[in-house]
Amino acid sequence: MRQYEMAELCFQGPKTEKDWVSVDLKAEIRHADSGETAIVMGFYAGGGNYKIRFLPKHAGAYTVQVSGIVNKTLELNVEKADPGCHGIVRTEGTAFVYEDGTPFHPFGTTVYALISQTDELIEQTMQTLEKAPFNKIRMCVFPKDYDFNHNEPSFYAFEEEEVDEADQIEDTAGAADAVGQAKNTAGAAADTEKTAEKKRKWDPSHPVFPFWDALDRHIARLGRMGIQVDLILFHPYDRWGFDGMGLEKDKTYLDYLIRRLAAFPNVWWSLANEYELCSRSREDWDEIEHFVAERDPYHHLLSCHNIFEIWDAQRPLTTHASIQSKCFWRLNEWREKFRKPVILDECCYEGNIEPFWGSITGKEMSRRFWRCVSTGAYCTHGETFYDDNDVLWWAKGGTLKGESPARIAFCRKIIESLPGHLEGETSFLQRLIPIYSMPEDEKKAAIDRLPESAKKLVLAFLASGSGQAQDFGSSEVVWYGHIGQEVFLRFHDTRPIARDTLELPENKTYRIDVLDTWNMTRETVAGGVSGKYTVMLPGREDMAVLALAE
Amino acid sequence: MRQYEMAELCFQGPKTEKDWVSVDLKAEIRHADSGETAIVMGFYAGGGNYKIRFLPKHAGAYTVQVSGIVNKTLELNVEKADPGCHGIVRTEGTAFVYEDGTPFHPFGTTVYALISQTDELIEQTMQTLEKAPFNKIRMCVFPKDYDFNHNEPSFYAFEEEEVDEADQIEDTAGAADAVGQAKNTAGAAADTEKTAEKKRKWDPSHPVFPFWDALDRHIARLGRMGIQVDLILFHPYDRWGFDGMGLEKDKTYLDYLIRRLAAFPNVWWSLANEYELCSRSREDWDEIEHFVAERDPYHHLLSCHNIFEIWDAQRPLTTHASIQSKCFWRLNEWREKFRKPVILDECCYEGNIEPFWGSITGKEMSRRFWRCVSTGAYCTHGETFYDDNDVLWWAKGGTLKGESPARIAFCRKIIESLPGHLEGETSFLQRLIPIYSMPEDEKKAAIDRLPESAKKLVLAFLASGSGQAQDFGSSEVVWYGHIGQEVFLRFHDTRPIARDTLELPENKTYRIDVLDTWNMTRETVAGGVSGKYTVMLPGREDMAVLALAE
Repeated sequence: MRQYEMAELCFQGPKTEKDWVSVDLKAEIRHADSGETAIVMGFYAGGGNYKIRFLPKHAGAYTVQVSGIVNKTLELNVEKADPGCHGIVRTEGTAFVYEDGTPFHPFGTTVYALISQTDELIEQTMQTLEKAPFNKIRMCVFPKDYDFNHNEPSFYAFEEEEVDEADQIEDTAGAADAVGQAKNTAGAAADTEKTAEKKRKWDPSHPVFPFWDALDRHIARLGRMGIQVDLILFHPYDRWGFDGMGLEKDKTYLDYLIRRLAAFPNVWWSLANEYELCSRSREDWDEIEHFVAERDPYHHLLSCHNIFEIWDAQRPLTTHASIQSKCFWRLNEWREKFRKPVILDECCYEGNIEPFWGSITGKEMSRRFWRCVSTGAYCTHGETFYDDNDVLWWAKGGTLKGESPARIAFCRKIIESLPGHLEGETSFLQRLIPIYSMPEDEKKAAIDRLPESAKKLVLAFLASGSGQAQDFGSSEVVWYGHIGQEVFLRFHDTRPIARDTLELPENKTYRIDVLDTWNMTRETVAGGVSGKYTVMLPGREDMAVLALAE
Repeated sequence: MRQYEMAELCFQGPKTEKDWVSVDLKAEIRHADSGETAIVMGFYAGGGNYKIRFLPKHAGAYTVQVSGIVNKTLELNVEKADPGCHGIVRTEGTAFVYEDGTPFHPFGTTVYALISQTDELIEQTMQTLEKAPFNKIRMCVFPKDYDFNHNEPSFYAFEEEEVDEADQIEDTAGAADAVGQAKNTAGAAADTEKTAEKKRKWDPSHPVFPFWDALDRHIARLGRMGIQVDLILFHPYDRWGFDGMGLEKDKTYLDYLIRRLAAFPNVWWSLANEYELCSRSREDWDEIEHFVAERDPYHHLLSCHNIFEIWDAQRPLTTHASIQSKCFWRLNEWREKFRKPVILDECCYEGNIEPFWGSITGKEMSRRFWRCVSTGAYCTHGETFYDDNDVLWWAKGGTLKGESPARIAFCRKIIESLPGHLEGETSFLQRLIPIYSMPEDEKKAAIDRLPESAKKLVLAFLASGSGQAQDFGSSEVVWYGHIGQEVFLRFHDTRPIARDTLELPENKTYRIDVLDTWNMTRETVAGGVSGKYTVMLPGREDMAVLALAE
């Protein structure tokens, strides 16, 4: 057993057919030196096998007091962490850090139905990930029914209830179809099959063990590659009935999942993909969020991903914002509102398919990463190229065809080389927008504080409708960030400027590097620079300027 | 004298020093055959010369009855229009047409201070325009004081009042400086010179004739090139005092301008560039708009250009929307709101300077044109490349350096080849946005009308905050337009799709052309097509698909 790695204890117990989830088995874990304690619940693994998993935060002697169907106390020795293992990822302000204090900068990808594919395809996907720049993956527990995602999984997560064969036939493909229609706003034909399926009734109290064994293996393997699993617990693109089982069954499923997976250091809970389209009320989501957070002894990162209405990441149990949006100009607004890390977990995919969400270029995908990281947020990749075998990365995995992964690797290298977490800078006009909603006296004071020369403009700005001002402010956005006075990063996106005039602090000197984020070059162009300094640029797109305190 | 060309009558009259604007000279113009009549005011041209200008809409016999300081009746014969002359441009719904019914599709450019340059530079600019694809130019009457625009003109429009030399010195460069600070949201240093000038008092009742003679020549020459002059009557980037003369002086200036220029067929009135920054109240603008529209016997196109708050083009005297914005997703909204032509007259410039507004690529400029034209709107070009002689096209003219003009020429050729004016199509999600502001019963009815499969999604959309829905709707925009069932145009912008599935009417057959808007190629890929049809595309950016009824 090693610090920061999942530890597993196995016991034999009674074979039962009644309920495989609510098993009476728990352990109190104590690390004497640090005082660390945790209470973890055991789970049934089939064939009379019961397991208890825990995640030691420390090296040294642990006492594990098992109670319930097994009662014993174990004294265990945990070895010091492997140098590559840093523990669970947590948040620190608007940044992420591993348990051991190592910064973590998520550079994620998306393979929604990864675990619902054949072993061969999963193997290929894992091999691709070995060489890819990603350290986080968004993937679903349940299979997915959507364009380019129609296959049955090898195993379902649970058994079916025994029901009368004569149950009515219902069209459960409605959700996927509706969204196909709406998300394909480019007018592309949704190729969603309308599969009229027998409505299934699932029995989450009877997990299908080969499914969970495989999920364990995949999470562990991803963990060895340094990849965080942003595990999507529910999603709406469902023809099987996993969406809409009812809250009690949802909780039974989550109970088993948490008992089984919470000791993996690299698991994050994503309550849902596009929560608003799932068959659950806001109250259901409240309960689900509380259930997951309260059952999880290790307090893994927890988020919830939207289609339209961004989940309120100010909620105390939500650790960070996991956002679907293409409104990059709101990155600073979100960070300031939530004061938690912001990940743009869905912002379209590199690809060539017809729908709007699946047809951005590799350059644009790469730029979206830079827009995010330079303002102190993070971004998630996905890929949707037509494929002869109908294997699209975003859906099923396989191989990567796009041009962005190499650039994302370059971006990650730069960001990981910096001495901290970037904080975004807001442009002059964006800073004015909050003035709209101030009470009159505060508004007046805010205007009085402005430099005299700017007042005329600001008054015209404030006299315009707030919608029109928002439009203006949102269309002249800069992607600038800084780490205190140590680092200043300016990403110039598609703007092919020939000069960039920096206004650096006078009390330090800086080295100036020019980055070509597309051609993946980094060149030091000056040193010993302070104050106002103009960098000459080549007048191409995708350039960035990095000033590093010497 | 020719139909659709400015006709000029010259008279000798008293030399006066008192007031050169409110001269008592008018003419009633009658065309017997058509019943066309116009009353035009004459103007003083200096040296005892008085002129009356009018614009015959017809060929044949005209009676001109002159009264005031000259009293006589003239019988004139007007020849049929030159084949290249089509008369004044008017609006027809959301489109423009010339007086003779020929469609006019504006493809404009911007040279704000063109007429304030040296003769040599103006000559070079005119020669550039001869070969450029533009048929409209935005230019100011008054000189401009802004970044890259600091030179004095050869002549001012009027004489100065005789004032006491001891008048106080004021910094009148405030406006330009404030805007420099705000518009340079990219943080670039504004290089606006703070020129403390003697505050000047102008006397618009004493026009400087060489200024107006030159303006006549430039307008006439641009007219011969087929270029409409979108003449900017006021603007805020002023160190001389032309902005803020007071309403009475403004009217004196406009009185002379209209007497002198209204008979040019190719003049449009642009009340202002960035009207909100000018030193005028909303009431002043009302009065100015009425003054111009009522004095102008020929009802030239009239618009007003914003910085933040779009001028309400629903106003009866405003003929079309002249918009500064980068919010292309609002094009359909504007067209539907105003039901008048929409020109995105400022949407950044192709160039490499530091400010946000002056650093888009040629590709992006070209795309902005295609986004506009494919949704039935129009776009205006400008160019801002650093120049050794500090001559930036957008400011002063000179030569064009960019990559967009060739693509704009290609775009213009395509649009002019179509049998009418495109009407934009709105995406599914954008069509939902108005549902937000409906009363509850209408909202319910609108939802009931939706296809069953879309309801779940729409309800989620409507349950989200209208701001978030706006964000979503505004970020999945399509650039599709059609001319009845005759033409369907889909511009795919930066989306490198490999297939485009059209849903054409079943009752007609179509020829399908694939356009590469960047490489300027047009290829017919199919004929005899009806209904649903998938076009294979090369997976590059900047492609468009055109379906033309056979």
